[in-house]
Amino acid sequence: MKTYYDSEPLTALDIRHGLAQERLTYDAVLDRIDARVESCEPHVKAWVALDTGAARAALAKQAVPLGASLLAGVPIGVKDIFTTSDFPTHYGSPIYAHGVMAGDADCVALARAAGALVIGKTVTTEFAYFKPGPTANPHDVRRTPGGSSSGSAAAVAAGMTPLAFGSQTAGSLIRPASYCGVFALKPTHDAYSLGGAKAMAPSLDTLGWLARSADDLELLRAALTLEHFEALPEADGTALRIAVLPGYEQEPIEAAAHAVFDDALALLSRAGVSIAPLDVPDEMHGLIDAQKAVQAYEAAQSFESEWNGKRDLLSAPFARLISDGIATARDTYEAARALAARSRIEFAALTRNADAVLTLAAPGEAPAGLDATGDPVLSRSWTLLGLPCVNVPGLRGPNGLPIGLQLIGKPLQERRLLAIAKLLNRLIERGI
Amino acid sequence: MKTYYDSEPLTALDIRHGLAQERLTYDAVLDRIDARVESCEPHVKAWVALDTGAARAALAKQAVPLGASLLAGVPIGVKDIFTTSDFPTHYGSPIYAHGVMAGDADCVALARAAGALVIGKTVTTEFAYFKPGPTANPHDVRRTPGGSSSGSAAAVAAGMTPLAFGSQTAGSLIRPASYCGVFALKPTHDAYSLGGAKAMAPSLDTLGWLARSADDLELLRAALTLEHFEALPEADGTALRIAVLPGYEQEPIEAAAHAVFDDALALLSRAGVSIAPLDVPDEMHGLIDAQKAVQAYEAAQSFESEWNGKRDLLSAPFARLISDGIATARDTYEAARALAARSRIEFAALTRNADAVLTLAAPGEAPAGLDATGDPVLSRSWTLLGLPCVNVPGLRGPNGLPIGLQLIGKPLQERRLLAIAKLLNRLIERGI
Repeated sequence: MKTYYDSEPLTALDIRHGLAQERLTYDAVLDRIDARVESCEPHVKAWVALDTGAARAALAKQAVPLGASLLAGVPIGVKDIFTTSDFPTHYGSPIYAHGVMAGDADCVALARAAGALVIGKTVTTEFAYFKPGPTANPHDVRRTPGGSSSGSAAAVAAGMTPLAFGSQTAGSLIRPASYCGVFALKPTHDAYSLGGAKAMAPSLDTLGWLARSADDLELLRAALTLEHFEALPEADGTALRIAVLPGYEQEPIEAAAHAVFDDALALLSRAGVSIAPLDVPDEMHGLIDAQKAVQAYEAAQSFESEWNGKRDLLSAPFARLISDGIATARDTYEAARALAARSRIEFAALTRNADAVLTLAAPGEAPAGLDATGDPVLSRSWTLLGLPCVNVPGLRGPNGLPIGLQLIGKPLQERRLLAIAKLLNRLIERGI
Repeated sequence: MKTYYDSEPLTALDIRHGLAQERLTYDAVLDRIDARVESCEPHVKAWVALDTGAARAALAKQAVPLGASLLAGVPIGVKDIFTTSDFPTHYGSPIYAHGVMAGDADCVALARAAGALVIGKTVTTEFAYFKPGPTANPHDVRRTPGGSSSGSAAAVAAGMTPLAFGSQTAGSLIRPASYCGVFALKPTHDAYSLGGAKAMAPSLDTLGWLARSADDLELLRAALTLEHFEALPEADGTALRIAVLPGYEQEPIEAAAHAVFDDALALLSRAGVSIAPLDVPDEMHGLIDAQKAVQAYEAAQSFESEWNGKRDLLSAPFARLISDGIATARDTYEAARALAARSRIEFAALTRNADAVLTLAAPGEAPAGLDATGDPVLSRSWTLLGLPCVNVPGLRGPNGLPIGLQLIGKPLQERRLLAIAKLLNRLIERGI
C-alpha cells in the first residue's frame, strides 16, 4: 500500500504557533502546501481548482487580516458546494460546468475574516449526493475517499490543506473522514449558516469541517462563532462516561470492523473510561428509513429547476432520489419528521447520564473502487436527530486502512465533544 | 382614509377557475395586474422591479408550463431577499445596489415549475431587518405596511399580485400581513427550502407567502410540496377547540386592540367555537428575549462579509444588531436555544387538546409613519419555537385599519391550520 504521508504536514495550530514564534513565514506555509500538492494531487485528485498564487497575492497586498486573527495565514479548502468570491462553483454537476460566480458563502466569509487563506475548491460528489468525482483515497488510491465531501477529506488526509469545509445531509462528512483517517465535525443542525451553499434538504443539511486534529476543528469552530480560541482541555478518561448502542445498526457493520470496535472499547475500558451499553427505544429503529424519506422528499423541492430543465444531465442515482422524493407521500414525510421529533426527546433522556455516545463512523474500511463512495448508514440517524458528531481517527482495519469512531454529543455542546474526541484519539494512538 | 381597493382583484383560485372555464385569458390576467399597478403603485411603492412584459413574452414563447399546472398563469411577486433568474437582487441594501444576478431561489423555481409568472421583486427592509424601504400601507399611505416583507404584503393587499413570497426571522410575515389585512403563512421551520435566500439566522429563518385567501395560501403550499391541490375543507366551528394565552405577551398590546381581540373571541364563542385559556409555563416568558439573542448571535455570523467590508453602508439599527450579536456570549446563545428546545416540548403538551392557539398578530393597527415598521414582539416566540403561524385578516381597529389574528399550529400541520384560518375569517367577516 502506497501512502503519501512522506512527512508530517502542518496543522492549523502548528502554523499559528510557527508564525507567532517566527519559525515560519506565510510564504513558507504556502510553499509547503505547493510541495505537498505537487507530490499528492496527481494521485489523489482532491481539487476542482487550486491556486495558492491568489493567496500569495492577497498576502502581498496585505488584503487579509493577519497578526492575532485566529486563522491568520492558515490555508483552507472549500467543498465545491459553497460559493466563494474567487473560484467558480460547479456543485459536482455538468449542469454547472460553466461555473457559478457569486460572493463568499457565509462560512467562507467568516474563515477569511479570521485570516484563513482560501486556496481552492475541493471535489464534491454530484450535488453532495452519491455520484463520485475523480478523488482517490490517499491511503490507497484504488479505494474511495468516501463522499460527498470527498475532496475535502482527501486533501486534509494527504496534507494538502490543514482545514477544509464540507457538508452533511446523510453521512457526507463523517464517512469520508472515517475512510481517510481525519477528524471531522458535523455540528448541531441549524447552528451554523449554510448561506451560499446549495441546499438539498433543509431539515438535514449541515455545515461541517475537517482537520488533522481535534484542536484544529475547535480553532475553526471558534472562528465561525466569533469566540476566542482556547486549546481543548485535557479531558480525564477516568471521569468519562461513554454510552454504546450494541443493539442498534449492527447489521451493516463488517465483522472485522466489529472486532476493531470491540478492541477499542476494551482499550478505553482499560484506560478507565466508563462504558455503558444502552438499549434504544424500538421505534428509533425506524430512523434510518425516516432519514431517507425526509432527504428524498425535501430534495425533490430543492432541485426543481435542475429536474425540470436539465434532467438529462443528472446521474441515474440522483434522478432516482428526486423521483423517489416526488413519489413520497406527504403522510410519510410527516410521520418521518414526527418520529425524529419524538426520538430527539427519547434519546436525550436515554443518554442523560452519558457524556457522549460512541459508534463506528462507517461499516468498515474504505471500499475498493472509485465508482461508489460507501454507505452512510451509520450517520443517517444522527443527522436526522440534528446532534453534533465527530469522527475520531486512529483505528485501523484488517488492510491497515483507517476506521473511524463516531462520537455523538448533545445539542450545541461541540466544544465538549471535541475535547472527548481529543482524549479518545490520544488513548487509541497510545494503544493503552 | 383613501383606499386603493377600487374593484375586487382576482385571487389565484379566481384566475385558475377563470382560465379553466375560458372566462379569462393569460393576457387578460396580466392586463388587470398592469391596470392595478398603474393606479396603486405610485402611492404604495411595493415593487423594486416589476415587468409583466417578461411574463407575456414567456407565455408567447410557451416557455411556461400551463394547462393543469397548479399555478398556471398566476402572477407572483418575490421579496427581494430571494434571487430570481430574471431580476437582480438587492436585499434592501446599498451594498448590493449593483444587483446580484443568480438563478432562481428554490421556492421561485417550484412556483415557476407550477406555472406561476414571476412579475417582479418586492421591497424588503434592509436585509429583512428593520430599516424600511419606500413602501406604504395601501389602507393608509401615511402608515407603515410593516416589515420586513413590506412590498409583498402591500402588493397583495393592493391587488397588484394575488401571491407573493416573503420570509420571517422574527415577525416579518405575520406583522405586515396584519397591518395590510392579508393572509400569510409562516410554515414550520426547516420544512421549506431557503436555497437562494440571504440567510440571517439559520435556526429562525423561514420561507413564507402571502395571499388574499386561505385557499390561495394552500394552493401555493401544494405547489411547493409537489402535492395535488384540494380546496380547504369547510371546518366545523362547533368542533373547533381554540386555546388562548391571556397571561402571555399582553403588555405590548394596545388597549383598542385588546378590545378588538375580546370582541372576536366573543363572536367565535357565539358561533360555537370552544375557547380555552391556557397558562404558559413561567420560563416561556423568556422566549422573546431568547429569540432576540439567537437572532443577533446568528446574524453576526451570517453578515461577516458585509460587516467587515462595507460597514459604513449598514444602517445604524442593522449595525447594532451585528455588534449585539458579536457581544452575545456563547453561554447566552446556548441557554436561549436550550429554552427553546424545552419550550417546544412543554408547549406541545400544554396545547395537546387544542386545534390551534390564537393571539393577536400585532400590538395594534399599523403605526403612523414610514420610518419604522412596527414591533414583531407577538411573533418572536412562535418563530423561535418553529411552529406554523397564519395571519387571519378580517378585524378592524379604531381607525378602520386591519388588525390580524395569529393562529399558531402544530409542526407540519399547515393544511389543517389554513382550514381553521379560513373558518375564522369567514365567521369574522359574517360578523356572527
